Amino acid sequence: MDAQLKELEEEIGKVPLIVQKWAKEDPALKDWVTEMDKHIWKDGKLSRQTKKIIAVCVAAALRDRHAVRAQAAGASNLGVDYDEMEEALRVTFLLAGMPAYTYGRTAIDDFMKK
Amino acid sequence: MDAQLKELEEEIGKVPLIVQKWAKEDPALKDWVTEMDKHIWKDGKLSRQTKKIIAVCVAAALRDRHAVRAQAAGASNLGVDYDEMEEALRVTFLLAGMPAYTYGRTAIDDFMKK
Amino acid sequence: MDAQLKELEEEIGKVPLIVQKWAKEDPALKDWVTEMDKHIWKDGKLSRQTKKIIAVCVAAALRDRHAVRAQAAGASNLGVDYDEMEEALRVTFLLAGMPAYTYGRTAIDDFMKK
Amino acid sequence: MDAQLKELEEEIGKVPLIVQKWAKEDPALKDWVTEMDKHIWKDGKLSRQTKKIIAVCVAAALRDRHAVRAQAAGASNLGVDYDEMEEALRVTFLLAGMPAYTYGRTAIDDFMKK
Amino acid sequence: MDAQLKELEEEIGKVPLIVQKWAKEDPALKDWVTEMDKHIWKDGKLSRQTKKIIAVCVAAALRDRHAVRAQAAGASNLGVDYDEMEEALRVTFLLAGMPAYTYGRTAIDDFMKK
Amino acid sequence: MDAQLKELEEEIGKVPLIVQKWAKEDPALKDWVTEMDKHIWKDGKLSRQTKKIIAVCVAAALRDRHAVRAQAAGASNLGVDYDEMEEALRVTFLLAGMPAYTYGRTAIDDFMKK
Repeated sequence: MDAQLKELEEEIGKVPLIVQKWAKEDPALKDWVTEMDKHIWKDGKLSRQTKKIIAVCVAAALRDRHAVRAQAAGASNLGVDYDEMEEALRVTFLLAGMPAYTYGRTAIDDFMKK
Repeated sequence: MDAQLKELEEEIGKVPLIVQKWAKEDPALKDWVTEMDKHIWKDGKLSRQTKKIIAVCVAAALRDRHAVRAQAAGASNLGVDYDEMEEALRVTFLLAGMPAYTYGRTAIDDFMKK
Repeated sequence: MDAQLKELEEEIGKVPLIVQKWAKEDPALKDWVTEMDKHIWKDGKLSRQTKKIIAVCVAAALRDRHAVRAQAAGASNLGVDYDEMEEALRVTFLLAGMPAYTYGRTAIDDFMKK
Repeated sequence: MDAQLKELEEEIGKVPLIVQKWAKEDPALKDWVTEMDKHIWKDGKLSRQTKKIIAVCVAAALRDRHAVRAQAAGASNLGVDYDEMEEALRVTFLLAGMPAYTYGRTAIDDFMKK
Repeated sequence: MDAQLKELEEEIGKVPLIVQKWAKEDPALKDWVTEMDKHIWKDGKLSRQTKKIIAVCVAAALRDRHAVRAQAAGASNLGVDYDEMEEALRVTFLLAGMPAYTYGRTAIDDFMKK
Repeated sequence: MDAQLKELEEEIGKVPLIVQKWAKEDPALKDWVTEMDKHIWKDGKLSRQTKKIIAVCVAAALRDRHAVRAQAAGASNLGVDYDEMEEALRVTFLLAGMPAYTYGRTAIDDFMKK
């Protein structure tokens, strides 16, 4: 993993496999995506942890099995608090139904520590 | 609007029209939904404002025109910071594409103050 | 509107504009789609009315503004009972969140008689 | 499982794991959700069986693997007729495409008796 | 597999299991769907290969695990070029986010030859 | 509009309003997104026109009213052939249902010349 990807890993908790593939196949694309990702995920008005909470909620609402697990793993690596995460998923429950909450809850129960 | 709904309005910034209809049509259903809503939206591990930010992001990811506008209006009433909200939507951009960001950005530009 | 489309109108309450366009542009495609549609929408194990209720619920869950209004109009033409339709949408509320119910409720309040 | 959850099981065929978790973690939330669920799923203008058919169709349209299987299992427990269920899924096919039908058909073939 | 289904297999690379079930359960429905499918998938203004590329992109955007794998397998059978397919998925990345690209990329890496 | 955005306009037919806002608010983000967009939309294994066709199909499948109209307008500016576009949308019809086709067809009938 190159230096740019290592730095990204610190920001987001887990570098997607896709970005690692692009690093070999199309380094220019990898560069733009990596810089954009680092810029968006870093601490700003909102902390990295809060952004990760949002990401899990969005992935759960979309019933996206890949993303919800990847984001939950990233949240775990960044030290996101389990109870904050679970509380956030209740908003997803209201907006997208119990099954969306289920996607999120299953992922955090598999990848985060209570 | 009855006392229970007024209290809900303070928590979430804006009571959905649907809950107001249920208050007349099916008070028992209104009661459970209102109590559940108050419980989920109130300040807890996460603030009401952070929960509203999550709600806008989820609605934007779902390309839900009704919800994204209603949540943005609620965010405005709760005094959510525009720049925090916009930063959160960038996470939605990464997870659900530029058009999802567009749904959210359009709603907050129409309903929130910069 | 040709005889085949008139017959379809009786089954489904409202022929989609698209099928009418295909009738001119590609009659063979119109024929297969029309026959398939008639076959699926007609009274069978489930009545045409129950199928229309399902269609409104599915369109609402997908946050599909075009389909939810078209299906609600078709439901009205077929004499679907408003209260049955509203009760069905509560299932959509549980499965897909309050905003999905809102899509459906708005459409039936605009297109069906209480 | 407490008395309230047992009663819910009779209405819906299968209590979601999530509600059982909430029974321990947050009994008040469990209570509102359980009462709301019982109220919505019980025989009314539409039978419990018809509501379950709608639920499977909605979950299939959303490509929701968890929900479509859970609802199909619940449908089986409530004695929903396989042929009625399959006919309903054809409406989902029209509204949401062949792959949505596939989600539903796979679930009912795994969880219901022909 | 009957002659009609064999012909369809040549057009689309892989006949869905569902159509094969309908061939036994409801031959009339199978006939309309098969004719419609052959008509839509065949070489026209766009080649069969380009249509398959579109199908993979749409299934990936919908996070549809069944469809994205089935379409990727069909693309492989029709000799779709891997690099064209991957380039197309980048459009899905822009429109529907990195996780949508991931659904597509995973499917083509499992089912197509580089 | 700066030089970079003008160049992007040539590739994609229409620069999203959002990118123009980012040009003022956050030039670094605008730069990465613009470079990534140019790279992905430019002629490659697939032509810019074919990529635009894919984009309309994906936006239609997602029932994304903003994106489907923006992409249809971009397709028109790039000289995409109406009949190719309509044929592509039939694949969306199969994968995501008639209402998804309707989203796409409505947009191209409003924004493209036959």
